[in-house]
Amino acid sequence: MNAACDLAARDAVYDVIARRRDVRAEFDGRPLDDAVLARVLGAAHRAPSVGMSQPWDFVVVRDAATRAAFAAHVAEQRAAFAATLPPERRTRFEPIRIEGVRESSVGIVVTHSQQRGGPHVLGRHTVADAGLFSTVLAVQNLWLAATAEGLGVGWVSFYEEPFLRDLLAIPADVRPIAWLCLGSVTHLQDVPDLERHGWRGRRPLTEAVHLGRWGVRAGQEVHDA
Amino acid sequence: MNAACDLAARDAVYDVIARRRDVRAEFDGRPLDDAVLARVLGAAHRAPSVGMSQPWDFVVVRDAATRAAFAAHVAEQRAAFAATLPPERRTRFEPIRIEGVRESSVGIVVTHSQQRGGPHVLGRHTVADAGLFSTVLAVQNLWLAATAEGLGVGWVSFYEEPFLRDLLAIPADVRPIAWLCLGSVTHLQDVPDLERHGWRGRRPLTEAVHLGRWGVRAGQEVHDA
Repeated sequence: MNAACDLAARDAVYDVIARRRDVRAEFDGRPLDDAVLARVLGAAHRAPSVGMSQPWDFVVVRDAATRAAFAAHVAEQRAAFAATLPPERRTRFEPIRIEGVRESSVGIVVTHSQQRGGPHVLGRHTVADAGLFSTVLAVQNLWLAATAEGLGVGWVSFYEEPFLRDLLAIPADVRPIAWLCLGSVTHLQDVPDLERHGWRGRRPLTEAVHLGRWGVRAGQEVHDA
Repeated sequence: MNAACDLAARDAVYDVIARRRDVRAEFDGRPLDDAVLARVLGAAHRAPSVGMSQPWDFVVVRDAATRAAFAAHVAEQRAAFAATLPPERRTRFEPIRIEGVRESSVGIVVTHSQQRGGPHVLGRHTVADAGLFSTVLAVQNLWLAATAEGLGVGWVSFYEEPFLRDLLAIPADVRPIAWLCLGSVTHLQDVPDLERHGWRGRRPLTEAVHLGRWGVRAGQEVHDA
């Protein structure tokens, strides 16, 4: 590739990172092409994993009754969360959609198996969660690939893990870590839902970056003479 | 954009997902431009997060003495892991590099704070780890942005968390989840290190995909009459 192409390719990656949204209300339910779904799952499957353990699995859920059962469970969990909120926050929460389980084209349940990779997973000796982290990395690959395909993804976390395990006959030693609503969308919002609804804004990058050690910000570094 | 441009942009995203590698041996130590580092950290900071909590922080480590201390700790952990391996696996492990802490341009320690976002984090009511997952999603954004910049990233997990916390003065309620070696590389390998060294190969995507419920593979779906 020439330099201009390299630059365009780089910008395309930043663009998809910037345009990606956590979608709830914008799914239009149009069916998903099998080839597109395979590409998106293939991207997830190319994630890095500790010791090459690839501890993830993907359960593709199209069935309307299964989705309705999950959506009803999510509605219960939403009500339970709302009940914990002080009145002002509860009022803010009220109009915020938290899922598009039935409206999306398909559900992708991402699971994690700590058994995958055998007893000696290289790199998981000191940090047991390193396996779990690998599975989460796969989610972000999926999310960005879907965005590049013009699709939307919404991660639903308002559920009890045992409920979802039972619903999809997931073995006891496998953990469901996400229900991802995936599908065709009318559009992606420019501003994230929670910011638009005044739930919570974004913090500036400078607050998240420390130089050399925790708490040292730009301009405060100590340099040797 | 026209359709050809859209397609090129989509392919650029898949390309960077495919070319991304977990780098150990290929760092050449050339200094990193501040503007590039800011773009890569900015990409991480654009990750989705549960309830817009943005629970991550990034500690940028350039200091040689700090990096040497961390590398020495990692070497100890490597020896401890090697000691747990049966002889055949130990021989396979021997030539595999596990870090480029001193050779990379910079270290980025990614941390997670469960306190960020206050007492009512939307979407973390049922799944406590949803916050931790957000921080991991930020790592994958960083990884892909760095790859798009022509840089390499290597996630080092051979460390005890308390050691790294002490080394960088990270508060007790903040968890370091990754030391990422980031920097200029001579090249990216076509085949992942662990596969080239015969440690472990990749499983096919079809083994990771289940249709409708756990254990149902393509061709085995039950359709209603």
